[in-house]
Amino acid sequence: MQPIYGKDTARDIKYNVKLEIARWNGRGITPRMAVVLASSDPASLVYVQSKKRTAESLGLGLEVFDLGAEVSQRELEQTLHRLSDSAEFQGVMLEFPLAPHLDPEKALSRIAAHKDVEGLSPANLSLIATGREKDAILAPTPHACILLAETQGPLIGKRVAVIGPGRTVGRPLISMLINRGATVTVVTEHTREVQTTLKDCEVIFVCVGRHGLLRKAAITEGQIVIDAGINVINDGLKGDADPEIYPLLKAYSPVPGGVGVVTSALIFQNFVRALELQAQEALTGGQA
Amino acid sequence: MQPIYGKDTARDIKYNVKLEIARWNGRGITPRMAVVLASSDPASLVYVQSKKRTAESLGLGLEVFDLGAEVSQRELEQTLHRLSDSAEFQGVMLEFPLAPHLDPEKALSRIAAHKDVEGLSPANLSLIATGREKDAILAPTPHACILLAETQGPLIGKRVAVIGPGRTVGRPLISMLINRGATVTVVTEHTREVQTTLKDCEVIFVCVGRHGLLRKAAITEGQIVIDAGINVINDGLKGDADPEIYPLLKAYSPVPGGVGVVTSALIFQNFVRALELQAQEALTGGQA
Repeated sequence: MQPIYGKDTARDIKYNVKLEIARWNGRGITPRMAVVLASSDPASLVYVQSKKRTAESLGLGLEVFDLGAEVSQRELEQTLHRLSDSAEFQGVMLEFPLAPHLDPEKALSRIAAHKDVEGLSPANLSLIATGREKDAILAPTPHACILLAETQGPLIGKRVAVIGPGRTVGRPLISMLINRGATVTVVTEHTREVQTTLKDCEVIFVCVGRHGLLRKAAITEGQIVIDAGINVINDGLKGDADPEIYPLLKAYSPVPGGVGVVTSALIFQNFVRALELQAQEALTGGQA
Repeated sequence: MQPIYGKDTARDIKYNVKLEIARWNGRGITPRMAVVLASSDPASLVYVQSKKRTAESLGLGLEVFDLGAEVSQRELEQTLHRLSDSAEFQGVMLEFPLAPHLDPEKALSRIAAHKDVEGLSPANLSLIATGREKDAILAPTPHACILLAETQGPLIGKRVAVIGPGRTVGRPLISMLINRGATVTVVTEHTREVQTTLKDCEVIFVCVGRHGLLRKAAITEGQIVIDAGINVINDGLKGDADPEIYPLLKAYSPVPGGVGVVTSALIFQNFVRALELQAQEALTGGQA
């Protein structure tokens, strides 16, 4: 029952980001990221402030555009389009959740692929889904799941399961696992006999967003669980796994301290990647 | 060992397409599809001529743009972009395979989503991969696989396998199966113990493109096999399944006569869908 902490992986990622950003700073340039808020979710403000502190410690600028919970779809899309077009920002990110009247899919389609630090625009998803990750920016949460799982050995040829094929985590994660040669089984709310279905899987990724969803009855001794759940419960952050399963497992990523920590760092690694893509495009006259 | 023929499904689809096109013809309009060739593949020419005959029998126009095997990437992309922009064509399709020097991904990204009758543009793939099929145009081959499988009962809650997560068939098929609530296992060339992995699957979809790939050793009696393989062998078209497995199966789609027949019809259903999407957009001023 070895915990897989994200701390060391996150530190290495941020260290490299800092070096890359320092090269730009050395040329008198402070690359900047734009974060757009469109909700009245109090947690989002906290997350954004935390990102801002990290950004500053890494040498890049981060500007928040708080459009409020009443913003229209059209205005949100125009803002994202304008920021994607602007030479002032090299990364654009839309903080979730959005106010309920807004359409996330249409909003995301207005973020230019080469500035999409969350890797959720249709162009990036499609590159990942077609196995062309080297041309894509990878969504940070599923990418963090992969990195933590790989601390336990390569995924090629392994039987693995993804519980919860959601838009932002499960779906891109399935593609990334296929790209790495894993034999993936996708478990949904309609899956019957969950324990039987999971039995032969060495690694179980759980990304549903419901605390305590993954219980003893579903687990076979010696499995590895990577927990992408982030559930705000009275006494703090909790994952999708019920801690009662930990003693049965070979290894598991805790919440907090696992996937989330690496995810936060990967947003900035993606920002560096976005800078590179834009530099390449500038060199090739937009034909990259 | 009941064969699942595609003939009846294809006939119903074409009947509805003919009715829809007749409504346009009645208003003096002949909708038109553009098919772009960029290879020296002799089979492609045969396929295109067959599509042209079907198109004419359904009341729509089909124009072939044969760019030859020497066309540059830039010229191919410009042609696709121009046809997507042109009011003369309501559907645009790129015939595969392309000449080897051409990049299919970049080419497909130049086809407007609302004219993409093969459902392979990044925007359509991304809609399918995020569970928003109702806004998408579905790739005909995986869609045909789904329709044939559903003749044996709904897919929700069923354990199914996809062998071969390729770009044009397997990948979108995986998404479509998840969207229908199936419990999907993806089998690749790296999968160990294939028979064990497939054992609990009621339906096996095979889409690798290698004749005889799926043999007795992989099968458990009573399974259903949907065969999306199209392999040109000396004595005709063959699927990925070795016919030696047929007696073991509950049902199977033959090649030829199964998936391919339905696929051909669905291209024209997609053309009608493309017409609808363009009419909607015209009504909403391009904000649809």
